[in-house]
Amino acid sequence: MRKEFCGVFGIWNHPEAANLAYLGLYALQHRGQETAGICSTDGDRLYHYADQGLVQEVFTRSTLSGLKGNAAIGHVRYSTTGSSASRNTQPLMANYWGGSLALAHNGNLTNAAELKKRLERKGAIFQTAMDSEILLHLIARSEENDFLEALKDALRQIRGAYSFLILRPGQMIAAKDPRGFRPLCVGRLGESYVVASESCAFDIIGAQLVRELEAGEMAIIGPEGIRSEFPIQPRIEPSFCIFEHIYFARPDSVIAGRSVYEMRKRLGRQLAIEHPAVADMVVPVPDSSNPAALGYSQQTGIPFEIGLIRSHYVGRTFIEPRQSIRDFGAKIKYNPLQQLLVGKRLVVVDDSIVRGTTAQKIVKMLRAAGAVEIHYRLSCPPWKNPCYYGIDTPLREELLASSRDLEAMRAYIAADSLQFLSIEGLERVFDNQGGFCMACFSGDYPGGRPRNHFKEILEARAVRVAAKP
Amino acid sequence: MRKEFCGVFGIWNHPEAANLAYLGLYALQHRGQETAGICSTDGDRLYHYADQGLVQEVFTRSTLSGLKGNAAIGHVRYSTTGSSASRNTQPLMANYWGGSLALAHNGNLTNAAELKKRLERKGAIFQTAMDSEILLHLIARSEENDFLEALKDALRQIRGAYSFLILRPGQMIAAKDPRGFRPLCVGRLGESYVVASESCAFDIIGAQLVRELEAGEMAIIGPEGIRSEFPIQPRIEPSFCIFEHIYFARPDSVIAGRSVYEMRKRLGRQLAIEHPAVADMVVPVPDSSNPAALGYSQQTGIPFEIGLIRSHYVGRTFIEPRQSIRDFGAKIKYNPLQQLLVGKRLVVVDDSIVRGTTAQKIVKMLRAAGAVEIHYRLSCPPWKNPCYYGIDTPLREELLASSRDLEAMRAYIAADSLQFLSIEGLERVFDNQGGFCMACFSGDYPGGRPRNHFKEILEARAVRVAAKP
Amino acid sequence: MRKEFCGVFGIWNHPEAANLAYLGLYALQHRGQETAGICSTDGDRLYHYADQGLVQEVFTRSTLSGLKGNAAIGHVRYSTTGSSASRNTQPLMANYWGGSLALAHNGNLTNAAELKKRLERKGAIFQTAMDSEILLHLIARSEENDFLEALKDALRQIRGAYSFLILRPGQMIAAKDPRGFRPLCVGRLGESYVVASESCAFDIIGAQLVRELEAGEMAIIGPEGIRSEFPIQPRIEPSFCIFEHIYFARPDSVIAGRSVYEMRKRLGRQLAIEHPAVADMVVPVPDSSNPAALGYSQQTGIPFEIGLIRSHYVGRTFIEPRQSIRDFGAKIKYNPLQQLLVGKRLVVVDDSIVRGTTAQKIVKMLRAAGAVEIHYRLSCPPWKNPCYYGIDTPLREELLASSRDLEAMRAYIAADSLQFLSIEGLERVFDNQGGFCMACFSGDYPGGRPRNHFKEILEARAVRVAAKP
Amino acid sequence: MRKEFCGVFGIWNHPEAANLAYLGLYALQHRGQETAGICSTDGDRLYHYADQGLVQEVFTRSTLSGLKGNAAIGHVRYSTTGSSASRNTQPLMANYWGGSLALAHNGNLTNAAELKKRLERKGAIFQTAMDSEILLHLIARSEENDFLEALKDALRQIRGAYSFLILRPGQMIAAKDPRGFRPLCVGRLGESYVVASESCAFDIIGAQLVRELEAGEMAIIGPEGIRSEFPIQPRIEPSFCIFEHIYFARPDSVIAGRSVYEMRKRLGRQLAIEHPAVADMVVPVPDSSNPAALGYSQQTGIPFEIGLIRSHYVGRTFIEPRQSIRDFGAKIKYNPLQQLLVGKRLVVVDDSIVRGTTAQKIVKMLRAAGAVEIHYRLSCPPWKNPCYYGIDTPLREELLASSRDLEAMRAYIAADSLQFLSIEGLERVFDNQGGFCMACFSGDYPGGRPRNHFKEILEARAVRVAAKP
Repeated sequence: MRKEFCGVFGIWNHPEAANLAYLGLYALQHRGQETAGICSTDGDRLYHYADQGLVQEVFTRSTLSGLKGNAAIGHVRYSTTGSSASRNTQPLMANYWGGSLALAHNGNLTNAAELKKRLERKGAIFQTAMDSEILLHLIARSEENDFLEALKDALRQIRGAYSFLILRPGQMIAAKDPRGFRPLCVGRLGESYVVASESCAFDIIGAQLVRELEAGEMAIIGPEGIRSEFPIQPRIEPSFCIFEHIYFARPDSVIAGRSVYEMRKRLGRQLAIEHPAVADMVVPVPDSSNPAALGYSQQTGIPFEIGLIRSHYVGRTFIEPRQSIRDFGAKIKYNPLQQLLVGKRLVVVDDSIVRGTTAQKIVKMLRAAGAVEIHYRLSCPPWKNPCYYGIDTPLREELLASSRDLEAMRAYIAADSLQFLSIEGLERVFDNQGGFCMACFSGDYPGGRPRNHFKEILEARAVRVAAKP
Repeated sequence: MRKEFCGVFGIWNHPEAANLAYLGLYALQHRGQETAGICSTDGDRLYHYADQGLVQEVFTRSTLSGLKGNAAIGHVRYSTTGSSASRNTQPLMANYWGGSLALAHNGNLTNAAELKKRLERKGAIFQTAMDSEILLHLIARSEENDFLEALKDALRQIRGAYSFLILRPGQMIAAKDPRGFRPLCVGRLGESYVVASESCAFDIIGAQLVRELEAGEMAIIGPEGIRSEFPIQPRIEPSFCIFEHIYFARPDSVIAGRSVYEMRKRLGRQLAIEHPAVADMVVPVPDSSNPAALGYSQQTGIPFEIGLIRSHYVGRTFIEPRQSIRDFGAKIKYNPLQQLLVGKRLVVVDDSIVRGTTAQKIVKMLRAAGAVEIHYRLSCPPWKNPCYYGIDTPLREELLASSRDLEAMRAYIAADSLQFLSIEGLERVFDNQGGFCMACFSGDYPGGRPRNHFKEILEARAVRVAAKP
Repeated sequence: MRKEFCGVFGIWNHPEAANLAYLGLYALQHRGQETAGICSTDGDRLYHYADQGLVQEVFTRSTLSGLKGNAAIGHVRYSTTGSSASRNTQPLMANYWGGSLALAHNGNLTNAAELKKRLERKGAIFQTAMDSEILLHLIARSEENDFLEALKDALRQIRGAYSFLILRPGQMIAAKDPRGFRPLCVGRLGESYVVASESCAFDIIGAQLVRELEAGEMAIIGPEGIRSEFPIQPRIEPSFCIFEHIYFARPDSVIAGRSVYEMRKRLGRQLAIEHPAVADMVVPVPDSSNPAALGYSQQTGIPFEIGLIRSHYVGRTFIEPRQSIRDFGAKIKYNPLQQLLVGKRLVVVDDSIVRGTTAQKIVKMLRAAGAVEIHYRLSCPPWKNPCYYGIDTPLREELLASSRDLEAMRAYIAADSLQFLSIEGLERVFDNQGGFCMACFSGDYPGGRPRNHFKEILEARAVRVAAKP
Repeated sequence: MRKEFCGVFGIWNHPEAANLAYLGLYALQHRGQETAGICSTDGDRLYHYADQGLVQEVFTRSTLSGLKGNAAIGHVRYSTTGSSASRNTQPLMANYWGGSLALAHNGNLTNAAELKKRLERKGAIFQTAMDSEILLHLIARSEENDFLEALKDALRQIRGAYSFLILRPGQMIAAKDPRGFRPLCVGRLGESYVVASESCAFDIIGAQLVRELEAGEMAIIGPEGIRSEFPIQPRIEPSFCIFEHIYFARPDSVIAGRSVYEMRKRLGRQLAIEHPAVADMVVPVPDSSNPAALGYSQQTGIPFEIGLIRSHYVGRTFIEPRQSIRDFGAKIKYNPLQQLLVGKRLVVVDDSIVRGTTAQKIVKMLRAAGAVEIHYRLSCPPWKNPCYYGIDTPLREELLASSRDLEAMRAYIAADSLQFLSIEGLERVFDNQGGFCMACFSGDYPGGRPRNHFKEILEARAVRVAAKP
């Protein structure tokens, strides 16, 4: 499954703003590989470039040099429908009564369909299939005459998950929803301010992580420095996406003071405590499960072995042979080490099962390579519920765990045993401190659920034909 | 000078709608060479593709096959600022309360700046720097619940010049402003209806010209056939752009029953009557002045000679040498025939002088080739006033004729004599029937003048960086 | 029919050698539109770039700036098989015992097949499907130790038609075959020497034509200036391609002191003397027949009218509709002016008939536009024989005139009358001075005929797959 | 350092030959990332496509479908000079007396300069800067009339390292030099034969590894099956490149019956035995050093930790910021995990040190992240001597170990300690069976050294300008 969603990056007051935004987006590439875009400002105009592709494919020296000025925001995105990708790039740009602004969004609004219907009935014209565009219309239609007031007015109308970056000629604004579902952190690089989805984007440019934005916080960065407001009162309990720790974030990022790598290792250790196995080796599903598998190995003493080699060259344009090669999709990504695995009992550590098809293929490949026992272990609880807060998930009925008990899931992937980390174990790893959204496991949605599915509403109407076949 | 502006083409009820739109736009290529776009519909969705470039460069077999359905509208455009070309393509598309629609526009709205300001203050977000977008917002904000009523409501609010083509899943609409500044004609191809800026677009697909749309007419084409309304009452005297006859239209087009080629020859004959010359040959500035020069030659008996060869391969990406080649810009386009011209007295017939720089270079080249006398003759009156109805013209002060008398103009281009067709002569050629806009010559603007310049307002704000350097 | 073949350009001792070569090739674009290439030298290395496409499409600012040095040669080419175009670009480059050299060739060797077979049997490896490569092998294998001696040795072994340009780090050499079939002229631009297929390439850069290279001449250009040798003795009667005057050359070129435009007008006059017609107007098949039609009109007094409009945007990638539009191929290129032609008797002047299919379509289009009589006149004699000296012609049996008498040809194109200029008339126009190859008309091949067809031998073996579909 | 060189793949008798070659090359992508090419045959013609770029970038569905037939060979290459990459693609193709053939080569000929000089003096024209081309000329010039005899004749004249794949319309030939420096193995896929540099290319298409080609073996594959000859007699002791095991091969490949992953783990274990360290964790330089680090960890019990995160998106077109970011080159590739490393004593396991600059930067990054002790361990002996057998290495003086003792090297990279695996230890890991080339460590060159450096001779002459900037 493709679980990427979006990453945002902003920089204020740096002579190479666009170049550093490019580097920051490069470090956030794992958060979205379909489109990339940057908008900069020289204090007078906005300059914008975005297209389909990886960060390195989208930008050239020539386009970067056209992105003038000393402030910039950028965005990487995973979009669900390829055909409309060229249109649905971010940052979004708009000309409205107050001038020009650019917007980069990570998250998902749960009342998008209602707001859109209401706005259209009032004459709004939507240019994209992205819920993010709603914020632009709310700002443009606000009764307020001051931009910041209009923005706060708009923020108070939207529901769901968002980490926004907004750029105007004289200002950069970072805003998090009241529950703080998605990450957003602030850093410094000399006299410059930087904002990013993850701290790994600071490391590449030599910036220092200062802190996470708080849930509900709106940070205004401008010539006079940085200051914060909390436009939605009273403030409520945060619900940070637990899956950022489990899967999304890069292991070298630090979220809320916790090393992602370290937390994943702890998940693996807790998994080993809950669900040990008698085996010859612990094999991760590379690369994202490596830390959990290491934790499992260190807890149990069963040797960690890289039994599946992952290819890192798989791009979007891969051409498949006409005749079927068995389990082709898995084969171009993973190759098992036959000599290592033959006759062995394996603990396979993975960080999530969505539809179960990849797990099924991995088990099949490992058996074909000679493994005699396969004990599949997941460093998270069963994923039973769709996410409405920014993760692109399939329908509930497509989730393997939504309608199957443990034995049915085990039978589906054909492992000798299958075990998941418990919700309690997951909470223990995070010291039972709470503050997380675990709706995908528990079904308890802290931010409510959307009444209609926004994407289908928008996408059905107009189709941009893609230039790249 | 670049005097192109826009061309539109529409086809209803044809299994190869997008392919024929492609051919129609190809025949209208002379009306706009910066961007090209087509939007089609299968009665359910709209399909859209547009990009910078010539028609043949923009579309591939693959993109055309993605433009599904049996109705389509297309657009070719000349945009003033290259940097924003990729964003300012047409047809425009919008999602609004009534669904989706696409819009192609040839013309220029004179109250665009006021309307835009008013719309923005009410919350409208503008995505392009094209005045055409205003119509979309007016439709989206109309109090009317029926699309056609909303469209009529919108048409009643705009001023200036427009030939619109609108495509919706079940309908294609063609509309002309009350003065009918710009051309738009209707034709038939078997069971299909076709609409185009010029009749030459019908010839290429074997369609028959039926008639011109009348000034103020709105033709609604759908499953039940074609019917017309005149939304703005009472109807007023039309003012068709005389420059379409003089310069813009292809010579093989027929406008209002008149052959463009024939009218240009008549302009040349009248010019000869008004301003004869003693000379050895009549030399056109190719290719657009060929018919007028032929008329001049036939009237006077002075032989017509192709004394300037025009290169037809000049594209947008021409690379100039670093060191200056004298009059390089003219040289890559025209080459004089030295052996023909040496020692000769020439009548050079041209169809317009804008800034005068090209005329100056041509005179210089012809003299360098050995011509002993150069009598420059223009098949139209002096162009003294900017056009606000869809022709991209420079500022008044840049127009050679705006502040110079005949002798000063002659001195500027360094010809031995310079003469223009008189306004009376121009009217005589068109049988003194009236119905033309001649504001560029007379300063008498039938549709009023805009209070602000729209383009500067829109363009100043946000800049898309161009991918193609 | 496509009758283009090749054009060459060279410049010595200019700081912008590659840029001026680019301009020169641009002026020679009509001689070959499939591939373009330039090789430059800084006196030490050779720098090379070539690709499929028009000159402007092939070169970018970046590739031109990589072509360092103050000498360069360039080539434009029409290649018969698209699939192998990317491989068969010129200038050819080779590393051999004497260093590096580049070669640009216009013409066709008649003993290519024999030479190639002999060279292969001695171990030569051929990289292209171009006969031009044979010269490289002959130079590389010469017993001579001096480059010029080796070149002369090689020239003495080849037969047929050639205008060669050769570039080495310290030298540029221009060579013409002993009969001088193809054009090649020398010019000056300040301290620089220029060589080109046609003089119009000098005009664009402001260079002065000095003279044609003589048949059999080898001009050596280097730091010490220019000097000539005639490697093949005794010298023989030249046979310059008459078709350069009739069709290939640009009208603004001067060949052997004769203006191409002027000679074409004379051909039209002579045609009118031989084959008058009672008609209302003379209509050229644009653009190449314009001068002949003007001559015909001036001789007869029948008015010259541009009754067929030619589109200048037709590129290689034109997409045809799936369903047949009648005579589509002709329609995208020509459009008749119905209002002008209806009820009229026409003299249509064309400069050649090859297969007759285009003439047939033009006659059909003109009749459909209302012409009542069509008298087709050709400004050259019937083309009965293939060219083996550098013009890409079809097989003899495909030539309309090869097996049909005048009446059969007339019936095929369905004109009311058809007449060709006589060979005697053609000679008279050129003052009966002789020195021309008229083999295509007369069947008298001054340079002999090849025993085998070279192209088929080479092309059958190895196929490069084209990247551009 | 870039240590890639080349990979080859061949398939005989499969209806999807080109598609499977594409997949095979994809699996061999780690062996060469600059150019990729495939040549196929349908028994009559050869079809060829090659370009700069990764396998997935070079080939499209369209180009693959043009590669017809049921046999194909492919090549991936790392070329040293970017400017000449577009010309220096493989497979090479040639037309010679016997028809057409294609050649793919992994290795390096040590007598290339002498052979080339001799061949040029006899009239050979070289088209590329690749020593591989020499084999083509030797075949083309052989006195033998039979292709296989000519090939054997040619093989007897060349010295050095080669694994060749040759494709002709009726035959595929695989040949290894008498010492068998570079890998080449044979497999089966149903009725098809496959040949590849590494067995991982068989896994992706579901083929079975049969065996390695023997040193000096020439395998002829055709309609009648496979048969072998040993053209060079008497046979000599093989010298397989030890570095294929240490660094080049993919860990999931099997070479000479040995799992590459397993051998690398054993190198790590032996390294731990020879050079233990007191430390808190073992950190690999990812990804190639992972197995050796795991071995070190398992031998010592010091925990294995992924302390450096490697980015997998670094492509050729990365744009660097104008202002220096400290150690930028390392930062875009590696990011240390500060929270994990702070205050820790590390064993860093790497698989080679070439110039030492990357090691230096890694040490610096780890210290900046808070590591208190860094014990750098290399899973191979010091690399003191350039490779002349196919690995692209710097000059001897650029190799860190060529002129420095252990302490000087340690000081250069600024580690707390530095240790290398001993040559004896290396031999012990491979059971002291011999048969390896260890010239890079020992200076004992089994295949002799070239007298001149081939590349400089060839490259100096002619430069193709790159289209991609």
